[in-house]
Amino acid sequence: MFSKHVERLIEALRCLPGVGRRSAQRMAFHLLDRDRAGAAALAGALGAALERVVRCTECRMFADAELCGICAASSRDRSLLCAVESPADVVAVEQATGYRGLYFVLMGHLSPLDGIGPVELGLDALERRLASGEVAELIIATNPTVEGEATAHYLAQLAREHRIKPTRIAHGVPVGGELEFVDGGTIAHAFSGRLEVK
Amino acid sequence: MFSKHVERLIEALRCLPGVGRRSAQRMAFHLLDRDRAGAAALAGALGAALERVVRCTECRMFADAELCGICAASSRDRSLLCAVESPADVVAVEQATGYRGLYFVLMGHLSPLDGIGPVELGLDALERRLASGEVAELIIATNPTVEGEATAHYLAQLAREHRIKPTRIAHGVPVGGELEFVDGGTIAHAFSGRLEVK
Repeated sequence: MFSKHVERLIEALRCLPGVGRRSAQRMAFHLLDRDRAGAAALAGALGAALERVVRCTECRMFADAELCGICAASSRDRSLLCAVESPADVVAVEQATGYRGLYFVLMGHLSPLDGIGPVELGLDALERRLASGEVAELIIATNPTVEGEATAHYLAQLAREHRIKPTRIAHGVPVGGELEFVDGGTIAHAFSGRLEVK
Repeated sequence: MFSKHVERLIEALRCLPGVGRRSAQRMAFHLLDRDRAGAAALAGALGAALERVVRCTECRMFADAELCGICAASSRDRSLLCAVESPADVVAVEQATGYRGLYFVLMGHLSPLDGIGPVELGLDALERRLASGEVAELIIATNPTVEGEATAHYLAQLAREHRIKPTRIAHGVPVGGELEFVDGGTIAHAFSGRLEVK
């Protein structure tokens, strides 16, 4: 019913996460009808990113050069290393905290059933960094899911093997949350992880 | 904090309707991390669509050639013309009904405050078609909003001037809807537009 090229654009837009047939159609019409400049910019940005964006050889974060901005910065504390599951987690930690150490982006979590083991997460590269003697503390900030916890356990063992202190970010009742509406698992976690009030 | 190219991609993705900073970031990471082939296909589809998609000279629908598929089809009834606000409306009517006539896509509705008058909606082209003597009925399927109704009123007058029968699609309680939960305006419309049961 449509122009072949419009149909192709609608299908291509469906590769975006959370975009189904109807949203893709709305996006295609919007771009063609009201924002051709935006569409051209998007095509250009996609091409440039595909061509130029690589992984930082130190932390596996997206980068334009061999090292990402954080790994290349001389102002960061190289004795602190924070392991996270995804680039979005780096953004979240950077925006919320004053953390000045480095990161290691796993790009996933251990999931043997999906064929994701230590090699797929680049843990050999992580091990080389732990062996370098530069790192004093490994802050494990994987997600508090079953797979994230398993990955955290594995990373902690790895750190201990290299006589590095592993730490895990705290889990408990979210700040601003009401106890009544917090799920049982979180409350149990918050209870077992209680700290002495000083 | 990010690679320049990733940042540019995130900004470019925000031109999509309903996509804010966070969704754009999620989309960019997904494309770069898990679907580079999809990203390349999207860049190609955007370029091709921008270069090749034009407006059908007859109905203003998106088309690859001078005429869109519907206007070029010899099987359609050329005495019926249906005026809709957007290409998405053509899709909706085609999918839901057995309508075999032609369309005219207004690409908007009359909105004098936004500077959208008869010329912007291509009503001069519509008038030429009404004057050709080919059209017997103008089915007005603009949205039942204030602007859509005003546009419908204008189109009906235009049709009458050319001695063509204007019709308006029916508005009332949606099929499958419950009276209790239908808004007052719709119920009032359904009452005043009641039909005799035969």
